[in-house]
Amino acid sequence: MIPMRARPVITLTTDFGLSDHFVGVMKGVIFGICPAAEVIDISHGVQPFDIVDGAFTIAQAYRYFPKKTIHVVVVDPGVGSARRPLLAEMAGQYFIAPDNGVLSIVFAREAPVRVRHITADKYFLHPVSRTFHGRDVFSPVAAHLAAGATPAQFGKRVEDYIRASFDKPAHTGKRSWTGTILKADHFGNLATNFHIDEFPSIQTHAFSLNAGLQKITRLALTFSECAPGELFAIVGSSGYLELASSEGSAAKALGCGAGSPVELTIY
Amino acid sequence: MIPMRARPVITLTTDFGLSDHFVGVMKGVIFGICPAAEVIDISHGVQPFDIVDGAFTIAQAYRYFPKKTIHVVVVDPGVGSARRPLLAEMAGQYFIAPDNGVLSIVFAREAPVRVRHITADKYFLHPVSRTFHGRDVFSPVAAHLAAGATPAQFGKRVEDYIRASFDKPAHTGKRSWTGTILKADHFGNLATNFHIDEFPSIQTHAFSLNAGLQKITRLALTFSECAPGELFAIVGSSGYLELASSEGSAAKALGCGAGSPVELTIY
Amino acid sequence: MIPMRARPVITLTTDFGLSDHFVGVMKGVIFGICPAAEVIDISHGVQPFDIVDGAFTIAQAYRYFPKKTIHVVVVDPGVGSARRPLLAEMAGQYFIAPDNGVLSIVFAREAPVRVRHITADKYFLHPVSRTFHGRDVFSPVAAHLAAGATPAQFGKRVEDYIRASFDKPAHTGKRSWTGTILKADHFGNLATNFHIDEFPSIQTHAFSLNAGLQKITRLALTFSECAPGELFAIVGSSGYLELASSEGSAAKALGCGAGSPVELTIY
Repeated sequence: MIPMRARPVITLTTDFGLSDHFVGVMKGVIFGICPAAEVIDISHGVQPFDIVDGAFTIAQAYRYFPKKTIHVVVVDPGVGSARRPLLAEMAGQYFIAPDNGVLSIVFAREAPVRVRHITADKYFLHPVSRTFHGRDVFSPVAAHLAAGATPAQFGKRVEDYIRASFDKPAHTGKRSWTGTILKADHFGNLATNFHIDEFPSIQTHAFSLNAGLQKITRLALTFSECAPGELFAIVGSSGYLELASSEGSAAKALGCGAGSPVELTIY
Repeated sequence: MIPMRARPVITLTTDFGLSDHFVGVMKGVIFGICPAAEVIDISHGVQPFDIVDGAFTIAQAYRYFPKKTIHVVVVDPGVGSARRPLLAEMAGQYFIAPDNGVLSIVFAREAPVRVRHITADKYFLHPVSRTFHGRDVFSPVAAHLAAGATPAQFGKRVEDYIRASFDKPAHTGKRSWTGTILKADHFGNLATNFHIDEFPSIQTHAFSLNAGLQKITRLALTFSECAPGELFAIVGSSGYLELASSEGSAAKALGCGAGSPVELTIY
Repeated sequence: MIPMRARPVITLTTDFGLSDHFVGVMKGVIFGICPAAEVIDISHGVQPFDIVDGAFTIAQAYRYFPKKTIHVVVVDPGVGSARRPLLAEMAGQYFIAPDNGVLSIVFAREAPVRVRHITADKYFLHPVSRTFHGRDVFSPVAAHLAAGATPAQFGKRVEDYIRASFDKPAHTGKRSWTGTILKADHFGNLATNFHIDEFPSIQTHAFSLNAGLQKITRLALTFSECAPGELFAIVGSSGYLELASSEGSAAKALGCGAGSPVELTIY
């Protein structure tokens, strides 16, 4: 019997939505292999096939989980093709995902990183379908890892995994940058790829953030200090600058969403 | 090792939605502190910033949970401001929520009620953000309580917490009242703030409920006894009168939603 | 204390959605009776009152769960009427559902099947409401079964339970059939009721699938081999033929959804 303290935690981040049986089936597979697992949904609302959204979602979440947590990230437009399944070790945790860049933001932040190409198909669910590797590859691998298999048992180390750099704004002038909106959240707040650690001066200098057809010049500390409907910037809970509107949707007010450009000028 | 029987139950009720990482991160924080916790989602579909909807959601749910359950309710338009985080003991259970009225319906039903202002910031996640107290304050407090801290360790008792009375219809005539629709549920049923315990006579007297531009005079016992599309009233599973339409949406048929007025006359 | 290996698994499949307190309350009831239970959501996104959608959802999921799993399926337009609650044993698992055909696809696949009419109301939550048997009947029965009650304790065996046959295409010509779209999934893929086990020849013969106003003649092995926007057929992860569009929505492209007809001709 496994003592409570040792219950392994597996998280799921996918673009599968919650209207179908997909997520439930992944959990069925996991519990069939590792009944002691604690499975936690990070989100299944990643935009379909949107690797940037998936990358941003797991990047905002993983640090809040215990050591040895196993994160399964399935945003996988290439399912059934030759793209490799990966098992990465970083930050004292495990990450299982297709090799398509969806772990890029975590890769950029953590060192050391050890990445393996998962090839040990004895850990897969057979027959392996060509359309649902969340069920047939990623979930059973996570469950076997949780049940005690070691990373090396799943495959050899690789170095040529995909690292995309969609989270860095481009320098476009002496004091100006062009960034991107990474995500419109449930409240309509717009998370940009400007991270406060890299742009600390907006806390002490005048600045403008241009998005949609509007210019935002206020950095607020809290939502509640602003007038309802006012547009402002705020440092989000993960450190990214967000465009927000108190008790309203900045996404609607600006007509912006994931992928929209944002111009930052610091004076 | 904690025996099974003692697994502490923590519930979550928020307006965070399920498309972002917010709820998953709260669970990560909880499991990091109290790995034995059983975390149950009541709903994350509370309308954004809607304290009445949050109050109604937790009020309909808490009685169905075991003694000592810890309910975390985060509908928190004032996050980052001076509004207090509260820990309430009532009905043999614990409630952790901002002091903004979101526990009002539970307060109105239960006695005795013991409420504390949570001030022991050693139980918080540091640095405490100004925008995500669900992660930094409410979740870790719930987890520490689940792990064995006593209520008194979190702060001193207060009496001046906010009790709103949005759940009582107004008496407008000898036999007439104006109530409110508290919620349109997933099926389009419209829950009103008329509770059968306070209006038992509608079961034995003729009545009319006016909403939208329609008058409803039938009290049904079951959905299936009514013709498809027929509008009727029914005592909902929590005791509130609901306006409903068999295999259809009363919300659509009446053009009503949360906040819409309902006139009751009993003849 | 129950050892980890023995944690009973209960799954939930409903049309309750996730915006209300319904699902959370079902879990509260279950944990109050059987604290050791592991409750897994298969889906709460079954279309409201849609028995075919519910039948298809559980049919695609149950095989991926461990032996002795207890599946609770509540799509129940007849709640409060005389329709019977059932407890079925098949495939080494348990199924608890209203007697309205929602288990039909599982019944058709499995043998032997043992079905009981649940009558032992001592296992219900009292007072039993007329509108929420998910809370008052199905959940507590599942929890008592998980906690050790035997199937025979819930009621006597019956043979006249409802078996619908909505999952079989109609033979309309020597080499042609009319089928139905069972479901549009989260990605807009359209699952038909043509199962590859019954129509293996489409893998080796030319064929056409007519849906909307379009004719589909390609059977793809993977999504990624097709051009973005191309319409094709593919064997879904549960064996049903699906109409799909790579990185796009076939449902939108064809203007089809659940219930739409599909004509198959094999040449």
